[in-house]
Amino acid sequence: MSMSQTAPRQLHLNVNILHSGFIPSAWRLPEADPLAFTDVGHYVKVAQLAEAAKLDAVFLADNASIIEQIDFRPITALEPTVLLAAVAAATTRIGIIGTASTSYNEPYNIARRFATLDHVSGGRAGWNIVTTADAGSARNFGLDTVPDHAGRYARADEFTQVVKALWNSWDDDAVIGDKASGRFIDESSVRPIAHRGAHFSVQGPLNLPRTPQGQPVLVQAGGSGDGRELAARHAEAVFSAAHTIEESLAYSRAINERAAALGRGPHAVKILPGLATIIGATEAQALRRRDELVDLIPWSYSLKRLAGTLGVPVERLQLDQPLPADLALPNGGNGNHTFFHATLSLVKGREHTVRDVIRALCGGGGHRVLVGTPEQVADEIERWFRAGAADGFNLMPDALPGGLQDFTESVVPILQRRGLFRREYEGRTLREHFGLARPVNVGGAQVRAA
Amino acid sequence: MSMSQTAPRQLHLNVNILHSGFIPSAWRLPEADPLAFTDVGHYVKVAQLAEAAKLDAVFLADNASIIEQIDFRPITALEPTVLLAAVAAATTRIGIIGTASTSYNEPYNIARRFATLDHVSGGRAGWNIVTTADAGSARNFGLDTVPDHAGRYARADEFTQVVKALWNSWDDDAVIGDKASGRFIDESSVRPIAHRGAHFSVQGPLNLPRTPQGQPVLVQAGGSGDGRELAARHAEAVFSAAHTIEESLAYSRAINERAAALGRGPHAVKILPGLATIIGATEAQALRRRDELVDLIPWSYSLKRLAGTLGVPVERLQLDQPLPADLALPNGGNGNHTFFHATLSLVKGREHTVRDVIRALCGGGGHRVLVGTPEQVADEIERWFRAGAADGFNLMPDALPGGLQDFTESVVPILQRRGLFRREYEGRTLREHFGLARPVNVGGAQVRAA
Repeated sequence: MSMSQTAPRQLHLNVNILHSGFIPSAWRLPEADPLAFTDVGHYVKVAQLAEAAKLDAVFLADNASIIEQIDFRPITALEPTVLLAAVAAATTRIGIIGTASTSYNEPYNIARRFATLDHVSGGRAGWNIVTTADAGSARNFGLDTVPDHAGRYARADEFTQVVKALWNSWDDDAVIGDKASGRFIDESSVRPIAHRGAHFSVQGPLNLPRTPQGQPVLVQAGGSGDGRELAARHAEAVFSAAHTIEESLAYSRAINERAAALGRGPHAVKILPGLATIIGATEAQALRRRDELVDLIPWSYSLKRLAGTLGVPVERLQLDQPLPADLALPNGGNGNHTFFHATLSLVKGREHTVRDVIRALCGGGGHRVLVGTPEQVADEIERWFRAGAADGFNLMPDALPGGLQDFTESVVPILQRRGLFRREYEGRTLREHFGLARPVNVGGAQVRAA
Repeated sequence: MSMSQTAPRQLHLNVNILHSGFIPSAWRLPEADPLAFTDVGHYVKVAQLAEAAKLDAVFLADNASIIEQIDFRPITALEPTVLLAAVAAATTRIGIIGTASTSYNEPYNIARRFATLDHVSGGRAGWNIVTTADAGSARNFGLDTVPDHAGRYARADEFTQVVKALWNSWDDDAVIGDKASGRFIDESSVRPIAHRGAHFSVQGPLNLPRTPQGQPVLVQAGGSGDGRELAARHAEAVFSAAHTIEESLAYSRAINERAAALGRGPHAVKILPGLATIIGATEAQALRRRDELVDLIPWSYSLKRLAGTLGVPVERLQLDQPLPADLALPNGGNGNHTFFHATLSLVKGREHTVRDVIRALCGGGGHRVLVGTPEQVADEIERWFRAGAADGFNLMPDALPGGLQDFTESVVPILQRRGLFRREYEGRTLREHFGLARPVNVGGAQVRAA
């Protein structure tokens, strides 16, 4: 049945549920519902489609303010943990990964919400750790300016340590529930964490038993030096951004070598680059679809977005001129490192106009966009996978659910025929889909299962 | 069909989903699953049973630490907003009310989570505002001691103001979604709140359109002076605790007179006292069931719990002696006012031993327990309702789901025959079930609909 008994290594495929789709104009397609971004039924439909194709997980990005130009496009709106609980109720096997910020939450609350999501989903939860770089978010949480990059990451590291300690504050077998004796929980199996750190004092224990997965899966997207260190220390999967194999390979090696140096074993961190897809029966059809979608995005919007990624005033970008040569990380290094570097790698050694770059990025975001036939898309996926540049991909279909359906109906069968992707789920939890061991916790000793 | 066209006033019935049930020993019943407290399927089953009986809402209490003796009993464990999203997915009409603390959250996050729950449930969400009085919770959020009572309530008031302002930061008609013109949202219909207060600075707007109910329903449980003021200012329903009609009537008048003085109109706040039920075919059978369940609770546990409510060292309580005469609010007035006063009103003018009190409270909590036949329970509900001492009740069945099934199968039909309770849902939202107007918000003007 499954091919993974013979195939030594299998692809991991998540789908990023970006409201109406990756392309900012996706909501304008004839078949699109403009109100999809606040409709739980839309997210359920996409998740069920992904589950039918045996994808590893759905992934929900998040923000703590309005960071987009809402006059032109939908935004990440519904809070991920609440939305994903509803998605979990309508699915049985697919993983559910939600984003939450370490800068604008308390670790006890985040530990509890993702542990609850893991219980409610029967062991399918993952937490995507972000530090939230925009000024609007800061102003929604009592701050006048964004905390600096290093400070955000120092807090994120301690935050994640506290969350993990809380998840481990109950032994796996703490709940006895013996009706005859009346013993409900073995109190000696539930321990305070007594954390006293630079950012947090948290006594614990968590008020919730250990979860089906032991710990929800930790996901991160570290592009900066601090981000990579956080990923190497804690992440089990990284949602990266890369436009070339070389770049992704170097990133994967750097993260995994650092993780190994920290005692986490070889290749502890799955590397899953973002991959937007626009699929057509022919390459020409796919390119036409791309251009039609890009033409539905106001150029003024795309220019502003690209200018934000590159940290230049929008006036410095001219549609039919090349990118400025003197680019530096936005906000004195406090910007989004991942998208900045990915965009530079896209143009490296080539002569691109700003218009070309916006077309290639489909509206000015930072992720790689593949435009082509199902075979071309499958070939690129296989090429990166076999080169070790990716353990899989975080898919970003151009439009949802249509673009995902294009992928599951036309690309997934090719990947299955090539023995690269599962035909059936073998496990029930996200850890099992990702091939990650369940951390065991008995008698206060945490054991990394073989 | 429905009787509410002819009946001038209808009861409102919520059910408090306290894990295995109100009585701490409920998990020891032969039919109980001891692991129900972390099983989403258990909560779904209870909610579906409540929905089949046309109850107004399910209600989930919450804590931010372990406040119970876990060696003897289950605890509130799963985080309410996440759990209730899963419950919403498995139901279509019943309201879902979750508890969240204003002392250990940020208003932007709470506004967003409950707004998401309202979107995901199609307009069925309610937020129960609590300030969280226990020291364990404080220690999970960086504090050595509990903030004092007045300070917690001052924060809660400002917190709630900010949450309401964020819920109103989008006009009802802000989302245009016009594919032809490409206009997605009318930016002039989405406004910052620019809140600068003693506890919070929140710029806004919320990154989520206004919800199906306009605002999720606000619920509170104010027993103290500060708590009553908070209820009068913000609550649309109060989950109170009272053992006598006189007490509940006085409470209802005080809250609603204060609300009217604040300009909220007559009887703006629904009063829903907690009501635990133990139902038997005969009164003797019901009493036998109560005594069996109470005998399954260790007396040492019940004594400790009662001592906590009354603010005395446990050594001062002797099972076969009356309560001490010199009782004062626990923790210098920082304790749970509701349960303290309710317990005193239970014994007022009567000669009760400590054992009697524990039996009457079924283990030392503060809520009223009705033990009897379906007719007796219905009679008491009707008596309080007709006296104006209650607009309905927050039901706390002895055991779940069994005790709720006893209620829905035997008491609800009596209430329906008497024209006191709906036979079918007339509305789709919790506001509609409660008979509350949907607050309208257009062009920056908030209008209280008639």
